[in-house]
Amino acid sequence: MAPPASASPSGSPSGTRFDILGIGNAIVDVLAPVPESFLSHHDMRKGAMALVDADTAERIYRAMPAGQETSGGSAANTCAVAAALGARVAYIGQVADDQLGAVFRHDIGAAGVHFPTPPLAGGAPTARCLILVSHDAQRTMNTYLGACVSLGEAEVDEALVAASSVTYLEGYLFDPPAAQAAFRRAAAAAHAAGRKVALSLSDAFCVDRHRAAFRELVAGHVDILFANESEICALYERNEFDQAAAMARQDVELAALTRGEQGSLILRGAETVEVAAVPTRVIDTTGAGDAYAAGFLAALTAGRTLAACGHLASIAAAEVISHYGARPLRDLSGELAALPR
Amino acid sequence: MAPPASASPSGSPSGTRFDILGIGNAIVDVLAPVPESFLSHHDMRKGAMALVDADTAERIYRAMPAGQETSGGSAANTCAVAAALGARVAYIGQVADDQLGAVFRHDIGAAGVHFPTPPLAGGAPTARCLILVSHDAQRTMNTYLGACVSLGEAEVDEALVAASSVTYLEGYLFDPPAAQAAFRRAAAAAHAAGRKVALSLSDAFCVDRHRAAFRELVAGHVDILFANESEICALYERNEFDQAAAMARQDVELAALTRGEQGSLILRGAETVEVAAVPTRVIDTTGAGDAYAAGFLAALTAGRTLAACGHLASIAAAEVISHYGARPLRDLSGELAALPR
Repeated sequence: MAPPASASPSGSPSGTRFDILGIGNAIVDVLAPVPESFLSHHDMRKGAMALVDADTAERIYRAMPAGQETSGGSAANTCAVAAALGARVAYIGQVADDQLGAVFRHDIGAAGVHFPTPPLAGGAPTARCLILVSHDAQRTMNTYLGACVSLGEAEVDEALVAASSVTYLEGYLFDPPAAQAAFRRAAAAAHAAGRKVALSLSDAFCVDRHRAAFRELVAGHVDILFANESEICALYERNEFDQAAAMARQDVELAALTRGEQGSLILRGAETVEVAAVPTRVIDTTGAGDAYAAGFLAALTAGRTLAACGHLASIAAAEVISHYGARPLRDLSGELAALPR
Repeated sequence: MAPPASASPSGSPSGTRFDILGIGNAIVDVLAPVPESFLSHHDMRKGAMALVDADTAERIYRAMPAGQETSGGSAANTCAVAAALGARVAYIGQVADDQLGAVFRHDIGAAGVHFPTPPLAGGAPTARCLILVSHDAQRTMNTYLGACVSLGEAEVDEALVAASSVTYLEGYLFDPPAAQAAFRRAAAAAHAAGRKVALSLSDAFCVDRHRAAFRELVAGHVDILFANESEICALYERNEFDQAAAMARQDVELAALTRGEQGSLILRGAETVEVAAVPTRVIDTTGAGDAYAAGFLAALTAGRTLAACGHLASIAAAEVISHYGARPLRDLSGELAALPR
């Protein structure tokens, strides 16, 4: 698919060119099934994302079974799923000028996402994430950031931000140091243009690493917050989900909090919407939260109710966890139109 | 897994170090689902393998949906499956010193296959095969040979051939010109050491391209022949399978001829063994013939009956066609021991 044609305000909400602009770490995933003993042997925290250097990535890769490579990256997955649902989507992220970078660029383009960021020449290689899938469908991730550490303010095209209804940022962006500046610049440009800023907390350990910066950003610059139970509890340092959820309700205009099989909770001011999970056979949970955010934002920017946003989010998440890999295999193009009005 | 330890004649059939040595085009597959119209629009022969140049590969890749990359190559797939079944396996093939070459090397090593061929420095990139899977599970392949065209006689380690019970050659090797010499050198070295030479015809159109050379090789240098119906008919220029099968029986010591859902036919001298296919839900036929050869040779080199060889072959083929990609996802390590004696 080609990216959407350039700005034509007629028919677009508020004259925007894109519904969603994602900014994140551009990563190629390497997925392989492993026994539980692999995780313990390599001192990995099951279910978490760990940052690793090039040597450690190489060591883990050597020990891994044969893998399957697919384009990944949290916000990039969200963009690909949202485009599959029919949203107009753009993405900013940094790949290298190498084979894996070409794979990433091909796949996000083929998903129908506009991806204008030029490849990095002469720096680190394209980032990769070694994803170990256990028999219980949980994924444990080891990310070598590579070229992603070069993403900074300069890569944020303010005109693109201003032309997008929602700028969506992944929490993982707080890990490469220069990206925090990109993050803030994007948020400022979005608000200056009267657009919304959405954030996914990504990972409880990522929140632990950057809690003060996250708290400041969420309270001051985020309109729409996505988190799962452990992430929202980590952000507000609360053991009780209800307490953390109440704090999120104060901090942001809209919060979508996911609870795995228990579905999700959507909070907006005094309003609370409970959404059931869509049942499916769970094969690999990689990308579940990314797909949830995609469905939610695709419905929200199409002007649907919060209940419809939550339901499309759950449909998208169910599709992605029903197979290996974080991007949809089933045709999702009719799901938005099929939602109850 | 590490490659098998070096030669220890005790316990090994005829003092060999490996049961199977595969020689073939070392390729990374890029798989994506497409509608039938994609094939017709790009003038592709459904179910066949076409050789394409770098520009054509790039053009097809641009038009393809988002893909999934996995290591492939016909003989390499056979090696990976045979190792998964417990055979001692080595592989000779040419990758480049690039990211996809590293992926190929990792995956064949992780499968437990000894792969001593050093990467090509400064030549063409690692070969890739763009595999378009239609809704009926048929795959249509477009191969850019890249570094494979550099495989020649020099890459054939005669000591390795002599140390392997069966040297297995893929018919696709006839496409890159220098590989025919590698092919002949390997066959001569195997016979000089009292070993067997196996050949898979690979593809009817590949047979058409090189019929005279194939006929000469099969009649003069091949002990074990693998082919499907269209390939064996193409080799002997016969419309009737029975006629072609009769000619194969004259030419080679042992022929295993596959007939899709109808199972397979094994011919050795006057002996004929009919083998039923193992029923499965067919998702993607990529690698079906490769896996069949793997099961057959793993059982044969373990000294099993022809019926057992055919049955293990059918089990391996059924596993591979039940999911996307040409390498097994299910643990096959107990299948050889579970065969009826």
